[in-house]
Amino acid sequence: MNNRRVKLTLSYDGTNFYGWQLQKTGRTVQGVIENGLAKMHKHPVRITAAGRTDSGVHANGQVCHFDTNLQIAESKLKLAVNTFLPDDISVLKSFFVNDNFHARYDAKKRVYKYYLCNFMEYNVFNRLFCTPVRNMPEINALNECVRSLIGIHDYTTFTAAGDKSESKIREIYSAVFYKEGSFTVFKIEGNAFLWKMIRSIVGTVLKFAPMEQGSLLFKNALESKDRSLAGTTAPAKGLFFHKVSY
Amino acid sequence: MNNRRVKLTLSYDGTNFYGWQLQKTGRTVQGVIENGLAKMHKHPVRITAAGRTDSGVHANGQVCHFDTNLQIAESKLKLAVNTFLPDDISVLKSFFVNDNFHARYDAKKRVYKYYLCNFMEYNVFNRLFCTPVRNMPEINALNECVRSLIGIHDYTTFTAAGDKSESKIREIYSAVFYKEGSFTVFKIEGNAFLWKMIRSIVGTVLKFAPMEQGSLLFKNALESKDRSLAGTTAPAKGLFFHKVSY
Repeated sequence: MNNRRVKLTLSYDGTNFYGWQLQKTGRTVQGVIENGLAKMHKHPVRITAAGRTDSGVHANGQVCHFDTNLQIAESKLKLAVNTFLPDDISVLKSFFVNDNFHARYDAKKRVYKYYLCNFMEYNVFNRLFCTPVRNMPEINALNECVRSLIGIHDYTTFTAAGDKSESKIREIYSAVFYKEGSFTVFKIEGNAFLWKMIRSIVGTVLKFAPMEQGSLLFKNALESKDRSLAGTTAPAKGLFFHKVSY
Repeated sequence: MNNRRVKLTLSYDGTNFYGWQLQKTGRTVQGVIENGLAKMHKHPVRITAAGRTDSGVHANGQVCHFDTNLQIAESKLKLAVNTFLPDDISVLKSFFVNDNFHARYDAKKRVYKYYLCNFMEYNVFNRLFCTPVRNMPEINALNECVRSLIGIHDYTTFTAAGDKSESKIREIYSAVFYKEGSFTVFKIEGNAFLWKMIRSIVGTVLKFAPMEQGSLLFKNALESKDRSLAGTTAPAKGLFFHKVSY
């Protein structure tokens, strides 16, 4: 029996994980899933994700792939894998794919959402899934800032010191703030993102949007490639890896 | 300076509490709030709640009262108390009230909500706030069952062995199932409730609603005052103490 490649679409509550990537110590999403798959397969199974989310970041559409030698119907795959996962990770979809499918290298578009909430409307039930803002800027002001992100740019301004990418050039397809219930949501679509880039963008928008000429200052910060002009990196808990397109 | 009585409306995520009531060991809502108020007042402060929620039960409108000798403006009270509370408890409203106001004895109506979700639509982000049901009965079938609850009845069927109330007679003003987004919600209003009564009602409705003549069987269970006819007590995590009227 040949191996077959499986594509999983995943949801997880990042609160109790030290991020995606396997570590020697600390509970990670990769570690917990590989552990479950090892129990299911009775041998080690390695998984590869579309993007390695940081500690505390959530996902509602992360994608990963692995190879299985189990005789299992595609329709049973999701339930089977979920049986071996804890309740803060959930397989949303699962399919057999071509042997050469690669969750990371084949990804054409990644979509993230960042959830902001009003500090004065603090809600214990969503406290782990949004970032409170004391004086929420107007949606228009937020959107005027992020317009300059669209396109192909060097995003050095919005990365962290430890980013290992050789090139800081990425392409952003869309970046927009909108209301979703009581939340102010930032949705950003791009081919790929630098380390902590979205959280840095959110922090920088919140810094400049309330200012006179805020969108110009934001654009200058982007073009300067100077990380010291960025705002404080927004907390991990507001960020959701929302979707990957292939 | 005389003491003034304070009425607080509270929200809490019951997940990490051993219920409301102070215990020798274990983190309780009462214990954590009294601890915060003691720091704020620099002396012990005792609080009294409208209802003592069980371990794991949430609240979005619990009410309690206490007496304060602090010189503080009513408008600052909420923020001041919240400063001394952890992030899984939040004061929603706070007012000065008459010295003879009593959160428990003066309560005329208590409202609880129970959240059910579809087992196949498992969502990691609400897993601590709703109870998954494998085969959700029709809303109509659920509502036909609970109709017999309305009025003044002996609710012995729906209590737990440890209930200490002398009389098991209560008055239920309304009991209804409805859709709220992807949830099926049970909302029940009554003057007061027996120990574990709402969770027992939910478990019993889920037992009988799918059956032919389910509403008749449910009514018979109520009238029998026989606890062995009730269904399995539904989990705490789906239950919210929603509102108290005075």
